[in-house]
Amino acid sequence: MPELAGYRGRALEFLSRVKANIGDVLETETEWGTVTGTVVPRYEYADDNHLVLKLKSGYNVGLAISKLKGATIKKRGEKPAFAPPEISNSRADLPKVLILGTGGTIASRVDYRTGAVSPAMTAEELHALIPELSDIAEVKPEILFNILSENIGSTHWSKLATRIGRSVAEGYAGVVVTHGTDTLGYTAAALSFALQNVPIPIVLVGSQRSPDRPSSDATQNLIGAVSIAANAPFSGVFVAMHLDESDDGIALHRGTRVRKNHTSRRDAFLSVGVPLAAVWRPSGIESIAQDLPKRGDATRFRPATRFDGKVALLKFYPSMPKELISFVGRMGYRGLIIEGTGLGHVSSKDIAAAKALAREGGLVCMTSQCVNGRVNLNVYDTGRDLLRAGVVPLEDMLAETALVKAMWALGNSSSVAEAKKLMLENIAGEMTSRRLPG
Amino acid sequence: MPELAGYRGRALEFLSRVKANIGDVLETETEWGTVTGTVVPRYEYADDNHLVLKLKSGYNVGLAISKLKGATIKKRGEKPAFAPPEISNSRADLPKVLILGTGGTIASRVDYRTGAVSPAMTAEELHALIPELSDIAEVKPEILFNILSENIGSTHWSKLATRIGRSVAEGYAGVVVTHGTDTLGYTAAALSFALQNVPIPIVLVGSQRSPDRPSSDATQNLIGAVSIAANAPFSGVFVAMHLDESDDGIALHRGTRVRKNHTSRRDAFLSVGVPLAAVWRPSGIESIAQDLPKRGDATRFRPATRFDGKVALLKFYPSMPKELISFVGRMGYRGLIIEGTGLGHVSSKDIAAAKALAREGGLVCMTSQCVNGRVNLNVYDTGRDLLRAGVVPLEDMLAETALVKAMWALGNSSSVAEAKKLMLENIAGEMTSRRLPG
Repeated sequence: MPELAGYRGRALEFLSRVKANIGDVLETETEWGTVTGTVVPRYEYADDNHLVLKLKSGYNVGLAISKLKGATIKKRGEKPAFAPPEISNSRADLPKVLILGTGGTIASRVDYRTGAVSPAMTAEELHALIPELSDIAEVKPEILFNILSENIGSTHWSKLATRIGRSVAEGYAGVVVTHGTDTLGYTAAALSFALQNVPIPIVLVGSQRSPDRPSSDATQNLIGAVSIAANAPFSGVFVAMHLDESDDGIALHRGTRVRKNHTSRRDAFLSVGVPLAAVWRPSGIESIAQDLPKRGDATRFRPATRFDGKVALLKFYPSMPKELISFVGRMGYRGLIIEGTGLGHVSSKDIAAAKALAREGGLVCMTSQCVNGRVNLNVYDTGRDLLRAGVVPLEDMLAETALVKAMWALGNSSSVAEAKKLMLENIAGEMTSRRLPG
Repeated sequence: MPELAGYRGRALEFLSRVKANIGDVLETETEWGTVTGTVVPRYEYADDNHLVLKLKSGYNVGLAISKLKGATIKKRGEKPAFAPPEISNSRADLPKVLILGTGGTIASRVDYRTGAVSPAMTAEELHALIPELSDIAEVKPEILFNILSENIGSTHWSKLATRIGRSVAEGYAGVVVTHGTDTLGYTAAALSFALQNVPIPIVLVGSQRSPDRPSSDATQNLIGAVSIAANAPFSGVFVAMHLDESDDGIALHRGTRVRKNHTSRRDAFLSVGVPLAAVWRPSGIESIAQDLPKRGDATRFRPATRFDGKVALLKFYPSMPKELISFVGRMGYRGLIIEGTGLGHVSSKDIAAAKALAREGGLVCMTSQCVNGRVNLNVYDTGRDLLRAGVVPLEDMLAETALVKAMWALGNSSSVAEAKKLMLENIAGEMTSRRLPG
């Protein structure tokens, strides 16, 4: 990493002028008084007018260069202490696990005690950071991309699925995907559809607290994920994150049923409508759900890695204008997922707009903003009107999963009618059919 | 109610021809065989081609008239048994409670055992249906409107708030609003802002199961709501719904913190981020939160009942096109609530669109699709970019509440700048400020 990584423009000039490097402890005069902290590297989308210092409290503060009166170096940063230890044995006896990096703060190394995180993705670095990994698997790290998870979209899902698809032939026992937590659930759903019947475990993992914080969940989540990828007796696409606020257990969620349900807790991820796939503890894998496919059978594995990004998700709300729904069609989109209220309702004027969209050949599907439970368009007249309008009810499918599935269904079908059929089929555990009343 | 309420066109002709009335048990020949059930009235938005029969199982089935081969009446419906009993004493000693009907299936009477529900909103009918009410309060029912809750929007909120505002001067001890559950939470938030510092309890109540089903929660919810409105020692706007799947307790949620979190359970409503306001049981009101305002102080009560419906809610999702955000401005909307991922993020291209919208004078605010937790735009560069773009972070406010609040803030401000200030103030318990790190 360059000495002043991420800084540019005025901020870079300032640091050069005072001869400060990343990791140096700097004392600056600001308009509110003296601020002392360690110079932190900056990343993607940083502006050129701020210096970021990590305070003793552990928090970062951004200071406008134009308002700084000067700076004195109080202490030079320590040089990185990441001399990779010799890996004494080849561990060729251990299962091979591919670790694919996409970004996010997990599997990162913290440089110079600044709190700044950069991917630590050579085998040696991983070993130095998390020596436990070497006892679990022969890990092969690979950085696929390094972007913030809010910028990951349908084209990235295709690349990721394609790479994982190849890993099966390459003899990996399992694959771990490190990913920012913001859109981890969406990517898990995408891989679930693209890699249906995958014969090995694919485990997506993130961390809610960056590795420089004492409360970080990064190490334990990654150890759990690699263990599951290496040793689980089942296959499929899963998300591994903290089970609760302790460090004791890692919950394994099914890729189509998982949701980030809290902005900051370490146990933010929940399985919705189904039990957990399993729980990992340092002592082993527990509480394995009976319905998981067994590891190893590759006969039905046919990756289908295309996604059509032109699907919109709209959450219905009171006074929502019908124009919002019509606009989806005007953008040339082929699909729309509606998050209706309750059992799957929208206002009568929005029904008319949805009907027009469906008539123009769009795939219009209904989910519920309640998150829990299932849509049912047979109970009230509004629901029956939506059915007559051609809206497809998606049972107990999460809205987020429905969006991803529609992108996948349209990407892998020759017609909207075919995609609609796929939407109503349970492909990757994303829905359970309602028992019809007798 | 007319004999063939709700039927029109071909369906009405069919019923007239076979001389069937609502409530009659009919045996019909369909393409799948003989179906026997009770003729159920139809409501809003019914088409003219379906006959609806209530089967013995309690479920309703819709039969296309064009496919019916005939029908025989097996049993004539019983005549309604709603002879209102004499109300023996005036009960003028009891607190006066205003019950405002807006639609939905609560406070309905079930006609002829058909399962069809129509508002039962004279004092006599309520007494006949729920005699317990007469021991709790002198109830004054009033039907304000009778529409499905998915069709209730900002103009209805204004009317409702205005009517409730008057009720204080009219000497009511409390007001109960019966409302369909789909958008109950949105309306509760609307009344919370419009009626801040209201000196009496305003209790919104709905039912998840219609009164014709043995598992209905309608009666118990309404008894709880009326009791609270009549007797609670506190004031404010609340939602009263089942506490759990039993009939034992009614949870009282704060109007700005409540969310329908399940499509069908009786205990679908949850308080998010705060404890319940109280729990009602037949034995009395329990577990009253310490921070609720005391009943009775009307000095600060100034209803502000205007809402500007031109606010949009967009939930961010991977590959969301920036055009969707720009379109909000093109519709002439003054406000946009974004449900971002995690701490409140969107993709970098959507940041640019949000920035443009804010620059054009729009009120652009950030909430999180995680539902739980709070947004924080100071942690990552994406967040800081959003702050620089002029996006307003709404702490731990629910997205649904944020939408309603923005409509209210724009409706009661002379400028967007003033509305923005209101958004950042805690007006009705909708947000708790984060303690800033030291």
